[in-house]
Amino acid sequence: MTAAVFGLGLIGGSFALALKDHGLADEVIGVDSSAENARSALELGLVDRTAIHDEAVAGSDLIVLATPVDVTPVLATRILNRVRHGQTVMDMGSIKEELCEVIEQHPARGRFVATHPMWGTEFSGPAAARHGAFTGRTTVICDRELCDADALATVENIYARIGSPVIYMSAAEQDLHTAYVSHISHITSFALALTVLEKEREEERIFDLAGGGFESTVRLAKSSPETWLPIFTGNKYNVLDVLREHIHQLQILRRLLERDDREGLRAAMQKANTIKRILP
Amino acid sequence: MTAAVFGLGLIGGSFALALKDHGLADEVIGVDSSAENARSALELGLVDRTAIHDEAVAGSDLIVLATPVDVTPVLATRILNRVRHGQTVMDMGSIKEELCEVIEQHPARGRFVATHPMWGTEFSGPAAARHGAFTGRTTVICDRELCDADALATVENIYARIGSPVIYMSAAEQDLHTAYVSHISHITSFALALTVLEKEREEERIFDLAGGGFESTVRLAKSSPETWLPIFTGNKYNVLDVLREHIHQLQILRRLLERDDREGLRAAMQKANTIKRILP
Repeated sequence: MTAAVFGLGLIGGSFALALKDHGLADEVIGVDSSAENARSALELGLVDRTAIHDEAVAGSDLIVLATPVDVTPVLATRILNRVRHGQTVMDMGSIKEELCEVIEQHPARGRFVATHPMWGTEFSGPAAARHGAFTGRTTVICDRELCDADALATVENIYARIGSPVIYMSAAEQDLHTAYVSHISHITSFALALTVLEKEREEERIFDLAGGGFESTVRLAKSSPETWLPIFTGNKYNVLDVLREHIHQLQILRRLLERDDREGLRAAMQKANTIKRILP
Repeated sequence: MTAAVFGLGLIGGSFALALKDHGLADEVIGVDSSAENARSALELGLVDRTAIHDEAVAGSDLIVLATPVDVTPVLATRILNRVRHGQTVMDMGSIKEELCEVIEQHPARGRFVATHPMWGTEFSGPAAARHGAFTGRTTVICDRELCDADALATVENIYARIGSPVIYMSAAEQDLHTAYVSHISHITSFALALTVLEKEREEERIFDLAGGGFESTVRLAKSSPETWLPIFTGNKYNVLDVLREHIHQLQILRRLLERDDREGLRAAMQKANTIKRILP
């Protein structure tokens, strides 16, 4: 099988590696709007060769979109316009509602499989790509009933071979749940970094003292605005809903502390502890 | 050297192991107000034997307080009341101002060394103790000018042998900086867990999707209220100051997203990214 990967950053680069590592593709063609990224991906051995858009689509059995989520809907439509029978198109983005709405009525909709593997790091670009990235992580496949059976089977087989268990939900459900388990964590991490940068003037002290839990909560604040700005704006209403609740919860904790309400604080922390039940 | 460790949880238990692992103590005596914890620490091999308070103090060269921070000031005073020349007392708590104020005028103040090693996990109790816990992590020593030279040297030597670089600051400075790099991360993590528990009714989905950054930001929400309630209340004014700023930063991000202000969001995220400069 020949695969074309559009977007040769953290996700696309890691997926290109996975396709080769698991013997799923004989050839991986890379496409990136940045000539520098394309060259870098080739030098790093993420892809076998690079190509321009139409050539990559024409010559591939599988076309993978790992582009920023604001680019994907139009790109997906343009690719579906050219897709031939037997070709499969998939995306790997963090949000799905807009994408799935844009391609909903396309005559070749059945060739498209919307996927979101739950893996990432705070790093970006071709150099951030890693072997073994998706293994052991869940992948969401959205709106599977709209996929042609063979296209769905092709993508399911890929994730099975990579070792990523698949779960199914609608595009709307995936965008809601992902706001909780991923997007809000990034927002709070950005805000935490801004808090510290705003208030802590002795930056050297942060570096010295950073063993106290700070790295793990602030790690995501290193994430790329190129990736995350389109995710936040594209999932605006879900993200705002969760963000308002999160601010509300922080205000409750603040008021409990202001009032020295130890029993209230203890009860809130004990309730938070029950997250252990879900994430052991 | 014989050492007595008061408080046989995550920190005290790990320190007891470090004292033995690095050949710093011939015998480690454990003291815990919970008979179950004491028994568990003995069974786990964290300590050589357990003893009651006065017996442990009388028979030890080094007395280590790894108790909840609201217990430490009174316990430290009672131990300093009994301390003999040549004995050294140290604590390992996350806050210092109240402690250092309480013991400030004690005739045996010089025997006390206030330390805060920047290490921890979200787990607690004797079973959470780990070998190698403090190695490579910075330790803060507070108000060193108030310590007898030999007591300070004893503690500095222990951290040097464990492989924990020491930095020095006043108790007030340490409480301020630790609010930024540790306490606020715990507050936001508790609030994030409460947000998700409040709003996300399909808990199974959290578990399925948890690869998206959520575990690292919510991990600290599993932390023990027994440890953290006294830290938050004991460092109330610093924690509230940082918490108010953090809520303010979240409100700014919320308003930018509400207004679709992409350039504003991008600028905020790019500023947050500069945390890389401090935490590479």
